Amino acid sequence: MKFVKNDQAAVFALGGLSEIGKNTYGVQFQDEIILIDAGVKFPEDDLLGIDYVIPDYTYIVQNKDKIKGLFITHGHEDHIGGIPFLLRQVNIPIYSGKLALGLIRNKLEEHGLLRNAKLIPIEEDDVIKFRKTSVSFFRTTHSIPDSYGIVVKTPPGNIVHTGDFKFDFTPVGEPANLAKMAEIGKEGVLCLLSDSTNSEVPGFTMSERVVGESINDIFSKTDGRLIFATFASNIYRLQQVIENAVKFGRKVAVFGRSMESAITIGQELGYIQAPKDTFIEPNQINRMSADQICILCTGSQGEPMAALSRIANGTHRHIQIIPGDTVVFSSSPIPGNTVSVSRTIDKLSRAGADVIHGRLSNIHTSGHGSQEEMKLMLRLIQPKYFLPIHGEYRMLKQHAKLAEACDVPMENSFIMDNGDVLALGKDQATISGKIPSGTVYVDGKGIGDIGNIVLRDRRILSEEGLVIVVVSINMKEFKIASGPDIISRGFVYMRESEDLINEAQKLVSDHLNRVMDRRTTQWSEIKNEITDTISPFLYERTKRRPMVLPIIMEV
Amino acid sequence: MKFVKNDQAAVFALGGLSEIGKNTYGVQFQDEIILIDAGVKFPEDDLLGIDYVIPDYTYIVQNKDKIKGLFITHGHEDHIGGIPFLLRQVNIPIYSGKLALGLIRNKLEEHGLLRNAKLIPIEEDDVIKFRKTSVSFFRTTHSIPDSYGIVVKTPPGNIVHTGDFKFDFTPVGEPANLAKMAEIGKEGVLCLLSDSTNSEVPGFTMSERVVGESINDIFSKTDGRLIFATFASNIYRLQQVIENAVKFGRKVAVFGRSMESAITIGQELGYIQAPKDTFIEPNQINRMSADQICILCTGSQGEPMAALSRIANGTHRHIQIIPGDTVVFSSSPIPGNTVSVSRTIDKLSRAGADVIHGRLSNIHTSGHGSQEEMKLMLRLIQPKYFLPIHGEYRMLKQHAKLAEACDVPMENSFIMDNGDVLALGKDQATISGKIPSGTVYVDGKGIGDIGNIVLRDRRILSEEGLVIVVVSINMKEFKIASGPDIISRGFVYMRESEDLINEAQKLVSDHLNRVMDRRTTQWSEIKNEITDTISPFLYERTKRRPMVLPIIMEV
Repeated sequence: MKFVKNDQAAVFALGGLSEIGKNTYGVQFQDEIILIDAGVKFPEDDLLGIDYVIPDYTYIVQNKDKIKGLFITHGHEDHIGGIPFLLRQVNIPIYSGKLALGLIRNKLEEHGLLRNAKLIPIEEDDVIKFRKTSVSFFRTTHSIPDSYGIVVKTPPGNIVHTGDFKFDFTPVGEPANLAKMAEIGKEGVLCLLSDSTNSEVPGFTMSERVVGESINDIFSKTDGRLIFATFASNIYRLQQVIENAVKFGRKVAVFGRSMESAITIGQELGYIQAPKDTFIEPNQINRMSADQICILCTGSQGEPMAALSRIANGTHRHIQIIPGDTVVFSSSPIPGNTVSVSRTIDKLSRAGADVIHGRLSNIHTSGHGSQEEMKLMLRLIQPKYFLPIHGEYRMLKQHAKLAEACDVPMENSFIMDNGDVLALGKDQATISGKIPSGTVYVDGKGIGDIGNIVLRDRRILSEEGLVIVVVSINMKEFKIASGPDIISRGFVYMRESEDLINEAQKLVSDHLNRVMDRRTTQWSEIKNEITDTISPFLYERTKRRPMVLPIIMEV
Repeated sequence: MKFVKNDQAAVFALGGLSEIGKNTYGVQFQDEIILIDAGVKFPEDDLLGIDYVIPDYTYIVQNKDKIKGLFITHGHEDHIGGIPFLLRQVNIPIYSGKLALGLIRNKLEEHGLLRNAKLIPIEEDDVIKFRKTSVSFFRTTHSIPDSYGIVVKTPPGNIVHTGDFKFDFTPVGEPANLAKMAEIGKEGVLCLLSDSTNSEVPGFTMSERVVGESINDIFSKTDGRLIFATFASNIYRLQQVIENAVKFGRKVAVFGRSMESAITIGQELGYIQAPKDTFIEPNQINRMSADQICILCTGSQGEPMAALSRIANGTHRHIQIIPGDTVVFSSSPIPGNTVSVSRTIDKLSRAGADVIHGRLSNIHTSGHGSQEEMKLMLRLIQPKYFLPIHGEYRMLKQHAKLAEACDVPMENSFIMDNGDVLALGKDQATISGKIPSGTVYVDGKGIGDIGNIVLRDRRILSEEGLVIVVVSINMKEFKIASGPDIISRGFVYMRESEDLINEAQKLVSDHLNRVMDRRTTQWSEIKNEITDTISPFLYERTKRRPMVLPIIMEV
């Protein structure tokens, strides 16, 4: 990095700034780069057909010899989902806590990348030393076990990355290591990178224990079958449901592939504990009485192919909703999913289920800390410079205001975009340059082969449909040999719009005859003439602007 | 209606049951039909390119001679938006309060339907008498002035429709007429149809006055320009902003066509009152100091073409956001709009504005009553039978539970679907039959010409794109004359996928030559052969399933 001085450390993000998702951060000192997380982002609705969004890894590829390792804060998709795509370009070592490592292993196996991967498990007290830098860890609380904050020691100072965190003083797993955080702060921190997700939410995020109490209440009041939907990765939540199932004499059936594999990994690592006979096979539920059954399933976000959606649609292999069933959404909908969640709830309740969901029932809590927790982190770490991360622009800005209230002057906070490079010296910090940091779309097997042109076409096709005009032309005699024929898809229902199509056909035909008289041999000109004739006609008649594709065959 | 006895009244809905939107209800006694409301529904994202959803009006058209009138409860789109489409099929008289009538008039003018429309203004004390039935009104409070509940007197008993309502005891306009509601209840009500929107929300909905206090607070604390975005139809909200602007010495500029026309109608009817020099033209704002400016604009739902979105994108003709501006979202996002609202907020705050939004700031209140208000309505009206309306299935169900708590036995409540007919005798009520009640899509000028096939095509095109294979065949010699050529849109970026396209071309070409050897003359067979050859190849290579369109020209 030319624009960073030799005695400065550089901090940058390829994803995770002014957005939620595809978290991918880097700390560089001279020829040593420490990467932190490599996540995906789930596309919003206007990215039609796109499966994932990942960062442009150009900077990593160009500097692959400098990469000391990829350090993972925790096992959520927006922090580990990009790993297979990254590893296909550079095979760097990955350091990670146990659970995330298990999830990464599964992921790499699916992609056929496990054999060559270098996966290194870490524990909280490990220190990974490189020539000029070193990396250490501190335990945090979050909605998945084995979540860590990361400290990168560099010559100009220590740089701390919180990962995703809340301060749950009564967590289901181990509590956050407040003492270690305080020590890190006391030792001196040059720059803090901290999770901004809930920076607009006042107060303190509810403890996972409170959710446990609600789960207990539900079990104690319910006679019928109980169906819990939640994120598979929220192992604590799964454990709390399973614990209560055992307590109230129910067996647990697990629906959904990611839920099954979460339970398997959770049991292997000891996060999920239950007597051996707790779990039953899905096909056993119909042999048991309603009050003996508890189902754990995926689909709490209304995902169309997930177990709960199939249950709601009446298309699940093993279960149909009957009156008396209770379905619990132990989750809150991600903004883009509110409509599909609401539809799923409605179908379930139409089928006769009581559905428990929503903010009022204390049946879910965020994995991210609210304002008071962010302030606690700032007070513990006491950074000189502050870089709010993991949030949309306004959340970063709000987080900077919280930092100001905790004595980090506003001019020491940096609201950056992906690709911006923060150069950190002992006593100064500036945004000093930019590295490549675009977004790359993954659609099926294609990585990066869908660009804005393809997406624009998809958008037009999706809203207005398509009209194809095919005509074959005898170029020697300047005559139409056959056609024009008009074919449409997604525009109007052809059988009911014969008149419209016939008129359009005649219009193009008449016009083309005139064009032929001009004895033009320019195909592009003929194509434009077709489009310019039919488009205004169709708009006038339908107020729609379908994509028009003229196809000319020469005879 | 064959399935309703001669001494029974029938109640039905063509829209508004198990959904929010396109409210269209009917009460029929023998040969007299009273229609209540004719709304549209705004399409959810999966109805690609659709502008509005309206009910199938078949039953109304078939019985047009029995229609006594369309009675409008209030002027929101989901209650009046269907009128132009309905009036194109049957020109029935429309009875409505002043404000809704003004909005309907504008709407009919736009559609060129005003000249022949029969519009009859009503006041609260009017009684519209027909031979066997009569219609009267009671004032309610809602987020738009001139909102009424409707009482239809029929020989077997009185049927009451609440319209949309809340009980705001300190409203900005006139309070609800509690005394009249109590009287109606005392007189005896056979069946109540009541708004279920907030039946899942405990407690009492906040008064519009509380929003007024928040608006006052914001004015008192802000020095820079103030931009308020809200629904244009919420005249009370507009009036509260304008009042405060006057109080704090600011001028008001109005951005957005629907906002301008709401202010005009509101002033004409006396709901909006302000000194003459309060309003300024948009082009005057740049001549005034920041603390003298208040802007009222549309776009509180993040609608892409609305004033606020253009301001956020930096493409508005009259204004650019500068640091120090404050933008207030005096609204809450409708579920389908959360993502676009969040994007708009983010752009505004990136441009330097302080953005005030969200539940915590008391800057918006619902127009619909919560559980305690629904119970109050039930206690006042004391119906024998109960039909929860205006809500998704689970909300209707929840509303029936509230009615049960207010002494309407569960067996006297009916959770119906659109098209179900409730037959009401003096002492019995049963769902006795069904009338046509589908949904009709409006896309541009087309009403009902977009069906499921077109939508399915749009969906495939939007997610996977399109591949066209064009080939001209010499049918006499069974030879390919030219092609096959492959054209794609929304599939892959062609220039970067030449190899893929070339391979596909060769594959189809080789296969077609073999097909030609069979000397087939069946075009459909040749087309299927093309599709069956190229589709698996493309899926194998890209994991995408584009729509394949084979086009064969005979030479």
